[in-house]
Amino acid sequence: MLLTPEIIPNAYTPPPRRLLGPGPSDISTRVLQALAKPTIGYLDPSFVGMMEELKTLLRYSFQTKNALTFPVSGPGSAGMEMCFVNMVNHGDKVIVCRNGVFGGRMVENVERCGGKAIVIDDVWGQAVSPQKVEDAFKQHPDAKVLAFVHAETSTGALSDAHTLCKIAQQYGALTIVDAVTSLAGVPVLVDEWGADAVYSGSQKCLSCTPGLSPITFNERAIAAVKARTQKCQSWFLDLNLLLGYWGETTRTYHHTAPTNSLYALHESLLVLQQEGLEQSWARHRSNHEALKAGLAVLDIHYVVDELARLPQLNAIHIPTGVDDKAVRAAMLQQHGIEIGAGLGALAGKIWRIGLMGYSSRVENVIACLGALEAVLVSQGYQCQQGRAVAAAYQSYAQQALV
Amino acid sequence: MLLTPEIIPNAYTPPPRRLLGPGPSDISTRVLQALAKPTIGYLDPSFVGMMEELKTLLRYSFQTKNALTFPVSGPGSAGMEMCFVNMVNHGDKVIVCRNGVFGGRMVENVERCGGKAIVIDDVWGQAVSPQKVEDAFKQHPDAKVLAFVHAETSTGALSDAHTLCKIAQQYGALTIVDAVTSLAGVPVLVDEWGADAVYSGSQKCLSCTPGLSPITFNERAIAAVKARTQKCQSWFLDLNLLLGYWGETTRTYHHTAPTNSLYALHESLLVLQQEGLEQSWARHRSNHEALKAGLAVLDIHYVVDELARLPQLNAIHIPTGVDDKAVRAAMLQQHGIEIGAGLGALAGKIWRIGLMGYSSRVENVIACLGALEAVLVSQGYQCQQGRAVAAAYQSYAQQALV
Repeated sequence: MLLTPEIIPNAYTPPPRRLLGPGPSDISTRVLQALAKPTIGYLDPSFVGMMEELKTLLRYSFQTKNALTFPVSGPGSAGMEMCFVNMVNHGDKVIVCRNGVFGGRMVENVERCGGKAIVIDDVWGQAVSPQKVEDAFKQHPDAKVLAFVHAETSTGALSDAHTLCKIAQQYGALTIVDAVTSLAGVPVLVDEWGADAVYSGSQKCLSCTPGLSPITFNERAIAAVKARTQKCQSWFLDLNLLLGYWGETTRTYHHTAPTNSLYALHESLLVLQQEGLEQSWARHRSNHEALKAGLAVLDIHYVVDELARLPQLNAIHIPTGVDDKAVRAAMLQQHGIEIGAGLGALAGKIWRIGLMGYSSRVENVIACLGALEAVLVSQGYQCQQGRAVAAAYQSYAQQALV
Repeated sequence: MLLTPEIIPNAYTPPPRRLLGPGPSDISTRVLQALAKPTIGYLDPSFVGMMEELKTLLRYSFQTKNALTFPVSGPGSAGMEMCFVNMVNHGDKVIVCRNGVFGGRMVENVERCGGKAIVIDDVWGQAVSPQKVEDAFKQHPDAKVLAFVHAETSTGALSDAHTLCKIAQQYGALTIVDAVTSLAGVPVLVDEWGADAVYSGSQKCLSCTPGLSPITFNERAIAAVKARTQKCQSWFLDLNLLLGYWGETTRTYHHTAPTNSLYALHESLLVLQQEGLEQSWARHRSNHEALKAGLAVLDIHYVVDELARLPQLNAIHIPTGVDDKAVRAAMLQQHGIEIGAGLGALAGKIWRIGLMGYSSRVENVIACLGALEAVLVSQGYQCQQGRAVAAAYQSYAQQALV
């Protein structure tokens, strides 16, 4: 006798949304259609050809010539873990910069790999301090790895990856860089920085479906991984095994690749190549400026100082007296707009407005400001409706003159 | 100066294929369309409602009432690793049954978790021997876990999961069961077996896109995980953390869920519920019988004895004198049909014809036999063209009479 099914009567239809949170971002019809192309085998010669193109496209997005550049079959957290389980041996000292949630997750990763984390804390919302990193290396010149988050998704802060990588190089340490939210939104220059292992996510400024983590390793990182005497603690994320599937010559079965998600990533990277990286960065900057102009007239302030502010992730203080959850619920239910809540210590204190990838469009900036004005007014917040939208339009007009 | 992109001129278009290998299987238009529905946030109340339905649908497919039943955001190898990293502590003895590639992967998992694997080997192509498992427990009554593969994808052998689970229970050990290829193709009766942790894959008999691993844990397994004194070595796969997102009450951010793949899984499980599990098993059996009848007249023989033979994965000996690679290449390029190669020790010696999920259709059986006849004849193999197809039709006719 089988267990009777609890009947689910209907197919699932997601409601219409503008995704202006910390990711996933809006996905274009073009990318969604690529996702729905018929599945084929992951060792099919046609698929293998697509994989090579994917690696080429990813190299452009990361600005690297690294041969080993491919998408991990899992979300950004799997990409992060792939770096740590392969590059950190038991007992290794790892300097970890923690200025938000994801730096904290790096500390967890180091400890679970049996490494010793030397934690450098910076205030949430600030960039990582290069001076503190330098000091940490002076105190721990035997540190094997420096790990930091380029763009902290939890706070909207951008750190100076180039400087941080150079410090690590001076001390002969490898670098692990989280570029989940930065890739394609602001410059990520892997070769120029000399970063050794860099991972990202598909669902942020690439505007592909969530579930893939583009990653790149340079020769120095690969040499370190190959020189390991301990087996990698993860089978699924063992780089030495994955080289057999994503490496240069062979195509040996390791795990079943997520075929359709890879189609979508290919298409989203093609979109990026066609737009051009510099144009993509400029677009993210432009829409950020317009949003910022609108928020200013609403007297809403940024968490992060101008210099370290991410254009694609606008972390803002919730105005005093305004109900966090009520505003986000009204934005979602009345206006179909998702904005992000604060994480960890910033929960209830900030909102995170993402303008990432395909979400970074004029119509989204206008819709977001218009809705936010209306919802805030309904909450009794003092502001004059329409002024924020007008300020955004004015910003666009000024930008056009430059 | 940016690195110049190496231009990829075209969007990727996969060629038409029938997927009759060991997975992924063919995916219906219905499921592909679900995959392409607009992405929404993974904490959106609408999405959270869909997650609950997904858990309900998965419980039916696994025949379990286990509350903790959800899809892991990664392929079957991630599901496997989730079981081991959470349930195996350093120093734990784990009895692992190895009768193919995936049993070997389980041994790797145990060792990478710091456990001690007690390996029971059976000949590839045979079921796991319950007697050997019983003997192993007699010798190692302190073993904490028994791990085995229900349906060995590398050999096409089905083991007696019910009996194996009962032996483990007698010795107070937990069970980890690989049901990647079995789920929805043959009975997987988690509660009746009393299996403690069972994982599967989305791309086999569920005919969803690859990249998800449905998993279920009973209360005994959860209690063991909660009682751990060592932190799980994986952050990404830490069940105690994932409970916060997929558990009963809370929806705390852990990682970004692969939204669109989950839409597709929801739809493929809805298809399964509408067909009914027993009907799905019967369909897999019926198409297997027809394929078998056709292969018999081609004088092609099965690797696995009739009693332990998986209907959804037909492992057959490559006839003497026939070129493995040439035949598979011709099947793919001339007929658009993917069949699977042998893995490991069976590479070059067997083919694996999968009739899984949506691939298990009359038209695929006929197309496969017709193409195989033609390709074998072109290779100089002695057989009379058309007879295999005729035998398959005759099998269907006989089945209709029963």
